[in-house]
Amino acid sequence: MTRNPQLNKHGELQHLITLEGLSREILAAIFDTAEPFAEVAEREIKKVPLLRGKSVFNLFFENSTRTRTTFEIAAKRLSADVINLNISTSSASKGESLLDTVDNLAAMQADMFVVRHASSGAPYLIAQHLAATGRDHIHIVNAGDGRHAHPTQGLLDMYTIRHYKKDFTRLTVAVVGDLLHSRVARSQIHALQALGVPEVRVIGPRTLLPTGVVEMGGRGSLRVFHDMREGLKGVDVVMMLRLQNERMAGALLPSPQEYFKYYGLTPEKLALAKPDAIVMHPGPMNRGIEIDSAVADGAHSVILPQVTFGIAVRMAVMSMLAGN
Amino acid sequence: MTRNPQLNKHGELQHLITLEGLSREILAAIFDTAEPFAEVAEREIKKVPLLRGKSVFNLFFENSTRTRTTFEIAAKRLSADVINLNISTSSASKGESLLDTVDNLAAMQADMFVVRHASSGAPYLIAQHLAATGRDHIHIVNAGDGRHAHPTQGLLDMYTIRHYKKDFTRLTVAVVGDLLHSRVARSQIHALQALGVPEVRVIGPRTLLPTGVVEMGGRGSLRVFHDMREGLKGVDVVMMLRLQNERMAGALLPSPQEYFKYYGLTPEKLALAKPDAIVMHPGPMNRGIEIDSAVADGAHSVILPQVTFGIAVRMAVMSMLAGN
Amino acid sequence: MTRNPQLNKHGELQHLITLEGLSREILAAIFDTAEPFAEVAEREIKKVPLLRGKSVFNLFFENSTRTRTTFEIAAKRLSADVINLNISTSSASKGESLLDTVDNLAAMQADMFVVRHASSGAPYLIAQHLAATGRDHIHIVNAGDGRHAHPTQGLLDMYTIRHYKKDFTRLTVAVVGDLLHSRVARSQIHALQALGVPEVRVIGPRTLLPTGVVEMGGRGSLRVFHDMREGLKGVDVVMMLRLQNERMAGALLPSPQEYFKYYGLTPEKLALAKPDAIVMHPGPMNRGIEIDSAVADGAHSVILPQVTFGIAVRMAVMSMLAGN
Repeated sequence: MTRNPQLNKHGELQHLITLEGLSREILAAIFDTAEPFAEVAEREIKKVPLLRGKSVFNLFFENSTRTRTTFEIAAKRLSADVINLNISTSSASKGESLLDTVDNLAAMQADMFVVRHASSGAPYLIAQHLAATGRDHIHIVNAGDGRHAHPTQGLLDMYTIRHYKKDFTRLTVAVVGDLLHSRVARSQIHALQALGVPEVRVIGPRTLLPTGVVEMGGRGSLRVFHDMREGLKGVDVVMMLRLQNERMAGALLPSPQEYFKYYGLTPEKLALAKPDAIVMHPGPMNRGIEIDSAVADGAHSVILPQVTFGIAVRMAVMSMLAGN
Repeated sequence: MTRNPQLNKHGELQHLITLEGLSREILAAIFDTAEPFAEVAEREIKKVPLLRGKSVFNLFFENSTRTRTTFEIAAKRLSADVINLNISTSSASKGESLLDTVDNLAAMQADMFVVRHASSGAPYLIAQHLAATGRDHIHIVNAGDGRHAHPTQGLLDMYTIRHYKKDFTRLTVAVVGDLLHSRVARSQIHALQALGVPEVRVIGPRTLLPTGVVEMGGRGSLRVFHDMREGLKGVDVVMMLRLQNERMAGALLPSPQEYFKYYGLTPEKLALAKPDAIVMHPGPMNRGIEIDSAVADGAHSVILPQVTFGIAVRMAVMSMLAGN
Repeated sequence: MTRNPQLNKHGELQHLITLEGLSREILAAIFDTAEPFAEVAEREIKKVPLLRGKSVFNLFFENSTRTRTTFEIAAKRLSADVINLNISTSSASKGESLLDTVDNLAAMQADMFVVRHASSGAPYLIAQHLAATGRDHIHIVNAGDGRHAHPTQGLLDMYTIRHYKKDFTRLTVAVVGDLLHSRVARSQIHALQALGVPEVRVIGPRTLLPTGVVEMGGRGSLRVFHDMREGLKGVDVVMMLRLQNERMAGALLPSPQEYFKYYGLTPEKLALAKPDAIVMHPGPMNRGIEIDSAVADGAHSVILPQVTFGIAVRMAVMSMLAGN
């Protein structure tokens, strides 16, 4: 069996590029590390010195203020020096290649690259390049690559489920919406299965489910629903996906209004889930399109706790990778 | 009487949204707190740990590098972690609402939002929303909202007057220029009257004075002049306003040259004020339009000390709101 | 003899604006100061407190993410507070003059301005203005001004040569490419001559060499070559220059392909240099235009060490200017 390229020879996390292939033990270790950081947020002084003197570069080849901010605040609370680079507007325009940019920043004695890129596989390419040139002491964290993965989002989602539901092995979880274009969904499904969730349902219109979605899960059992009401029956967790604005105008969807009618999460549809079901959303929400405000702001919503746990999970990952 | 929404139940400053309704005692407390910070600037090491571990988010829905910089440097000298967010170019474009953005950042365990917004009332709306959702431990500082207020500018102006003139109760102060569009002027006039300045004059063309400007002052006495020479006679303090570039092309003004002729502050016009009068300007200046370079750089000008005091006053406000 | 305006009355470095006129002793002092910082990069904690509490403003009137990043990381590793200002997109658009912007930031108790400007002489103008107004305790570091100079690039190049070749006085060094538009080349040639390099060669097409290039060196001996093969014979150091994209379309050059044929550094041309020759490039590289990938990534290349030394040299300059 080939070694997972994210792990070093001692089986420890070296990079975080995808949740695919991460064992339940490693996932649990991340969550356990995150717990005290979630508490840190409630202390008067939120800073810990675990990355003091370390240089974290936020390499955003694709703009995302929201995601960049979560990594920036996590790194600063670990006392790292943080450098934000919005690459799309800089040296890329001077014709420099991705790997030359990376080489250059690596030579500035970077300790970690947080990479966001529109192309699937870019963070892996960077990790491979650093390994091939003897610099794999620099850690890569994937902050979203194309349609491939968004592992810290997947982790914070799992942390949130663990926080509210404790035991993964007795849950029914539904992932709802545009799975076709969602890197978040891929990371979520990998993690849910690794953590032993016995029933994962995917709900969405045919045009927004990848062909072969049933096989996507691998060993786990994945059930596909096109009728949202059917799919929500008795679930413990509803994970809504964001409907990208750019999809709405396309041929894949009739209209935002019709989408909301069939796949928008309303209190009435949510009533089909378990009474103590939780509702999640990776943000930013399209209120009135994929989710009704009454649900987004309602008693079942754990959407804002997701954000809070997201900081803690990112602090956990960063400190596990590069902590003093 | 309703409680001032900026004060907590102990009458302490909770947010800084407007100078309207702030008592002379609170203003004096801010100035007294600012004094050692003004000295800090002259020490070799300018940093104090009052906001160590606190997260300050600069939420600039309207771009202003200058103002953002003053808050950023103030927060960093208080040892806070500072996150700059230029919102106009980010999630707003993803269709997220103002309050969803705020909820999201609040969930990252923010301690303070410094808010700049083109719409009057946005910082108050945010403060109300946080209070309604039980999160009013997060402090709001208004960094300029629409035509409403720019309270830290008003405070630094008052600090500057106090520094040079000591006693507010014997002063004649003139505010000159485009009061119609100026959030700065509103904050200044509120503060001058709260601090007991017996005579506040407003000077400007009819087209640039708000209707009802005389009543604007409330209890204090506000005198209106359209002839700048008349208005400057015997004043202790001349507070010039910036003429927004976008106004110059409009129907409200004849031409920049003519504006300068009638309302530009020249040495000759300034000679009508008291011999020890001070000249202030919030910046950035339009030299040769609202102010002559000979005045801007002359012996009466305290325009650069205003900037220095501005950092100290912002440090004072931030540490009073959120200091360890 | 007039005093070098970069030095204070004790002959110490006050600003770094150009390498012109800096003595061999001062250059050596910078390199000696940089050495432990180059080591710092390999320690677990890379931070030193030499600029703790100091405020460094990166004033970039011309955008350059790469250069800004090197100064930002250097200042942060010295524990300074760093404020990035991309001026082209801010107050400049409000019509404020360069010196008003500088006055304003100086009044925020800046300790150092790192200045990048499209106009030659801008950093010198700022230094003069600060001196004329009694504020020359604020230090200026030129981060590239027009076609004039890029002194920290020149310094890091010299540091790199010293690191690999030890003794400057026995070297033959070639500078290759577009000298006409290169501020880097000017800084390099000044430094090479100050450090006693006996033979400096410049290689390039007639259209890209400044008229009077031979005199450019002043006292030193500068040899001009239009045939790259001739020029590379027996050299110890090859310093490639970047060919600006905007030049390629112009009348000065036939085509990128032809440029590469005559002036691109290939393994075959490099074989004419000494067997232990080193190859340098200031980045970002145009692979296949001024340099072949086989050379850029080859055994003679010291292009990435240049970047690493660049951080150390900038830390040295900043701490010599403003260190506690």
